[in-house]
Amino acid sequence: MKALIIAAGKGERLELVNSTKVLERFLGFSLLERVILSTREAGVKEFYIVIGHRGDEVVTALGDGTRFGVHINYIKNEQWEKGNGHSVLAAKDKLEHERFFLLMGDHLFDSNILKLLSETEFSGGCLVCTEKNLSKIFDLPEAMKVLVEDSHIRAIGKDIGKFNAVDCGIFLCTGEIFDAIEKSIANGRDELFQAIALLAKRDRAKAFDISSSFWFDIDTPRNLNEAKKRMLKSLTSRDDGVVSRLLNRKISTRISSRLVNRNISPNAISWMVFFIGVLAASLFLSGEYLFIALGGLIVQLVSILDGCDGEIAKLKFLRSRYGALLDSVLDRYVDALLIACLTYGYWHIVGDGLLWLVGLAALMGSLGISYTRARYESAFASPIPVGRSIPATRDVRLFIIMLGALLNQVFVTLAILAILTNAEVIRRMINWKKSG
Amino acid sequence: MKALIIAAGKGERLELVNSTKVLERFLGFSLLERVILSTREAGVKEFYIVIGHRGDEVVTALGDGTRFGVHINYIKNEQWEKGNGHSVLAAKDKLEHERFFLLMGDHLFDSNILKLLSETEFSGGCLVCTEKNLSKIFDLPEAMKVLVEDSHIRAIGKDIGKFNAVDCGIFLCTGEIFDAIEKSIANGRDELFQAIALLAKRDRAKAFDISSSFWFDIDTPRNLNEAKKRMLKSLTSRDDGVVSRLLNRKISTRISSRLVNRNISPNAISWMVFFIGVLAASLFLSGEYLFIALGGLIVQLVSILDGCDGEIAKLKFLRSRYGALLDSVLDRYVDALLIACLTYGYWHIVGDGLLWLVGLAALMGSLGISYTRARYESAFASPIPVGRSIPATRDVRLFIIMLGALLNQVFVTLAILAILTNAEVIRRMINWKKSG
Repeated sequence: MKALIIAAGKGERLELVNSTKVLERFLGFSLLERVILSTREAGVKEFYIVIGHRGDEVVTALGDGTRFGVHINYIKNEQWEKGNGHSVLAAKDKLEHERFFLLMGDHLFDSNILKLLSETEFSGGCLVCTEKNLSKIFDLPEAMKVLVEDSHIRAIGKDIGKFNAVDCGIFLCTGEIFDAIEKSIANGRDELFQAIALLAKRDRAKAFDISSSFWFDIDTPRNLNEAKKRMLKSLTSRDDGVVSRLLNRKISTRISSRLVNRNISPNAISWMVFFIGVLAASLFLSGEYLFIALGGLIVQLVSILDGCDGEIAKLKFLRSRYGALLDSVLDRYVDALLIACLTYGYWHIVGDGLLWLVGLAALMGSLGISYTRARYESAFASPIPVGRSIPATRDVRLFIIMLGALLNQVFVTLAILAILTNAEVIRRMINWKKSG
Repeated sequence: MKALIIAAGKGERLELVNSTKVLERFLGFSLLERVILSTREAGVKEFYIVIGHRGDEVVTALGDGTRFGVHINYIKNEQWEKGNGHSVLAAKDKLEHERFFLLMGDHLFDSNILKLLSETEFSGGCLVCTEKNLSKIFDLPEAMKVLVEDSHIRAIGKDIGKFNAVDCGIFLCTGEIFDAIEKSIANGRDELFQAIALLAKRDRAKAFDISSSFWFDIDTPRNLNEAKKRMLKSLTSRDDGVVSRLLNRKISTRISSRLVNRNISPNAISWMVFFIGVLAASLFLSGEYLFIALGGLIVQLVSILDGCDGEIAKLKFLRSRYGALLDSVLDRYVDALLIACLTYGYWHIVGDGLLWLVGLAALMGSLGISYTRARYESAFASPIPVGRSIPATRDVRLFIIMLGALLNQVFVTLAILAILTNAEVIRRMINWKKSG
């Protein structure tokens, strides 16, 4: 699949640091770079970018795309001051015989949207990504509204009276779009949405709902900030536990938004967090309250920073299976070390043999949580089912260790960990027995 | 896909316990039941069985297939005493318009063969499974030989002079086979192989090499025993470590071949082995040599029996993802318990604090081996690559524990375990870094 990106307009509503809107910086990349890199994540390697207003600056900034591992072709639209239908039409002879993504240079989105879009059934015409959660729209009066009935687009425009969704500026097209634009322009209507309205009339425009994914139309400085907030929020994982959701992510995403501008790799962060974890464990070894309490605080820091490697990887388009693997394996070593050192240090002082049993159970349960998950995903080749579960994810476990350390309740902490984690392992096994 | 099974012949060369060859017992099932269940494992639910000699006994024994979760249709071939082309032809009006597996009621095979066969490119005619490793053939003079050139069958027959493979009696067919049989019979040639020779002449018969898989043509009592040996041997896994290959599997498959006739489920065996493992660990707790040595012997027993659940599951067509998951999780708890109890028991006597560190490293490394594997398979959605590795699989680890226990060298044992396992975890991580 190829992608056509419209980057010809002026973006008058954004007070610019750069003089060209699509080159405006956003969490380490320009808007246009983000659009290209998100599209590349969906497997696209061949790009057509329509330039107009200060097009030379765009070409200078992006080059031929080698830097991003893609190939960029530029198409100049001399009529960029007219409606954006002209910009799309400028690519006609390059793309009229194939399917392609049509994207806006100032509309950010999650690459998953394109993956889903390319996998969906599509019988030609135009597939328009739409958002039906209107409360999410930052500036509804300015948004392109659509009326969707049973996935068919019935009306489109900024001022239509009846609407139930918004056009997200992300399309899957065939050459039909060019014919529609030509007919539309011939009737004095030179905006893309007017051509889509024409396709809709022939029932050749369908809606593809992306309400659960991140996307954002950057228009004004105020919504640039809102977009940053939302993108950072979209970095959370569906597997996040309660401590992660309520505390860790709020802090880690802020840290990540700073780190994204620095030359630091996600794997380096994984290793850094690993060593901080080892430090915390070594503090537990002494068995003295002050050290244990300090260790507990560092454990919570580890828990927070643990989110940063994944967040940075997403923000910088550096996600890799190896990176996720490394993070997981290092986390397991820290998990085991923390519990072992907590047990050893406290036992050294109280000398209670039962502590060993409880410590071992806590250690096995903690690793059991991670192991059962990985083993399930390897056996069933799908993510483990989300649903009711006993809270025993890593964020919860580390939070319990932090609390226990501060309260100097090592035995109780280990006992709670042992019970929660092993109970969750057993719950999973019983649950999975049903799924065969 | 449907399957056509030929079970009409007499099988004169097998001295029968049952009076019908395909009903002869073989590791808990009749031959014909095994053919049906192996085919079901490849996803086939609809069966056509051609009966002749004592066909009523076959119908009585198998019924309509509900018991096996399939549907069986019987086709009577009154001319079963003639060549087996007549038996295949009897199914013409049922199957002439589709693709189907053509199988022999007395030819055992691994269900993977059918899975691969159904995924291969096939442009009609007949795809004949062939074995090119002629030394594997039990009774070469009696075998159906073929001459294969670049996947095309050039000649087929028991007495052809030049041949380089053997026909395994497993076919993927289209209706063309029926036309070929009719033409062949019209020329006085009523054996299936003669019809395939006809297809081969028109270049409509291709070979599909299955040399690396288990299959066996049961013909005489002597080769019935050989078939049992080979099937038991085929139960080994590609992941088996050196101790498994050289020792454990030889014993476990013998045990499994006895257990297969009893009403015991693979999961029950997993639990039984788990409790034996817990027993061994509890013996380690005392720290006394005699108990440790006894525990060591039991550990080796655990290692041997650990193969039985998977073997029984394969032999009884009871493989399930949950079963594999349960086995893995229980194994991890035993792994951890053994090392923890060994450490605790010995430390209780010698009181050396360093022992804890070594024990923890051994425990983490052991679980790390299993965790990295599961995590890799979940991230990369493919089995972990086989290749050069440090021997640290479970069979090797348990063997080291057994040796160390017998030699009363707990510290050295734990140290060796710690080094081998963690070194292998590190080797894997470095290796996988390259694959991204």
